[in-house]
Amino acid sequence: MNLILLNDNDFIGADVVDIYDRRSKHILKFYKSQVGDYLTVGLLNGKIGQGKVLSIENKHIKLKIILEISPPAPLPITLILALPRPHTLKKAIHVATSLGIKDIYLINSQKVEKSYWQSSLLKDNKLDNEIILALEQAKDSIPPKIKLRPRFKPFIEDEIPNIIKGSLPIIAHPYTNKNERAKRDQHISLAIGPEGGFTEYEVDKFIQLGFNTFNCGARILRVEFAIPTIVGNLLP
Amino acid sequence: MNLILLNDNDFIGADVVDIYDRRSKHILKFYKSQVGDYLTVGLLNGKIGQGKVLSIENKHIKLKIILEISPPAPLPITLILALPRPHTLKKAIHVATSLGIKDIYLINSQKVEKSYWQSSLLKDNKLDNEIILALEQAKDSIPPKIKLRPRFKPFIEDEIPNIIKGSLPIIAHPYTNKNERAKRDQHISLAIGPEGGFTEYEVDKFIQLGFNTFNCGARILRVEFAIPTIVGNLLP
Repeated sequence: MNLILLNDNDFIGADVVDIYDRRSKHILKFYKSQVGDYLTVGLLNGKIGQGKVLSIENKHIKLKIILEISPPAPLPITLILALPRPHTLKKAIHVATSLGIKDIYLINSQKVEKSYWQSSLLKDNKLDNEIILALEQAKDSIPPKIKLRPRFKPFIEDEIPNIIKGSLPIIAHPYTNKNERAKRDQHISLAIGPEGGFTEYEVDKFIQLGFNTFNCGARILRVEFAIPTIVGNLLP
Repeated sequence: MNLILLNDNDFIGADVVDIYDRRSKHILKFYKSQVGDYLTVGLLNGKIGQGKVLSIENKHIKLKIILEISPPAPLPITLILALPRPHTLKKAIHVATSLGIKDIYLINSQKVEKSYWQSSLLKDNKLDNEIILALEQAKDSIPPKIKLRPRFKPFIEDEIPNIIKGSLPIIAHPYTNKNERAKRDQHISLAIGPEGGFTEYEVDKFIQLGFNTFNCGARILRVEFAIPTIVGNLLP
């Protein structure tokens, strides 16, 4: 936790918060904070800044906060990810969030197992926990928007053309030699397939829409490691 | 498991192996292999190829193997990593191995907790398990060499000059604007600090030896995600 992420429920005054949960435990156990210490804080969907410890009582921590710094700029990448198995999904969302990706489409593909769409992780905003941990790690305050697209064909035919407009569209695919790289400030639309890859039909659909194939190398990486490797390689 | 990694103990003939452990369980449960099927196999520290299922009896699987393909070329990167906490170390070794890094120095730094050097993971080749999982994931057969350097000063003064000779030396460090990128086939020596970063003294030591600082962006990434992001960005 490199930033204490606050939400509206924490406020007990215009610039005073009272926290008493996982966050206060972390502050006491790892930071060993004392009255008068300063902590890095951020308001969910708002600015970041400093919080001064006013009091520590019964594991409640009161902070006087000043929020005047804009969170880091979004990474100029829209991620289009074939829905991974739930265990992997958490890690994928974590890494995408901590990299600063703000738009994530979770899509279907022939090799996505149907059961993955029934995962409890996709219900009741359960991914929010993972997103908050990732924001706290990355010192960011703006969560990504995650959109579920359980039908491949209407997504690729009706939505993708608008999503990729004005961006460099890339599909991670093993069989290609030439890799594009974004220019400074160029937006990227990055599609990453499921375990076993997109089918030939699916890859063709992406290519017909103007996607460039991107070779991730001879080795097969877990999704949560493929995302940062490809993102790192695409960025200028 | 994208490749069944074999070792010398598996052989019951010149080109026949008998496997009965985690690997055979995986083959039966996930691949649902039958007699006559082909599987991708590799010999630890040797070549990769195909194994044909000869028999499946009492969960023993016999394969007739042909090993004639060289494993993928090593990634031209030497990783110099401040020893992370054990839980993170496993993930860092996994990602470095699956990326194809073959030389890893685990080094000390002021912000490395002394207890990390006592971790049981560093004893009795316990990291080998994680390395094997990563090779099976990546379809590789050559494990990295991991060297422990629990004293910073003799390492940086006596060893680093030889390690970086002929390579592009890079230290991940937040405060810089200019990022180098390797040329095709150029070898990189990449130093990544501990949680909280290298100290100013340590960074200066690296810079005096010719290391270029590399800015990972405004966000703080977990070590296991920083490694692929930086590696992806450095590679041509």
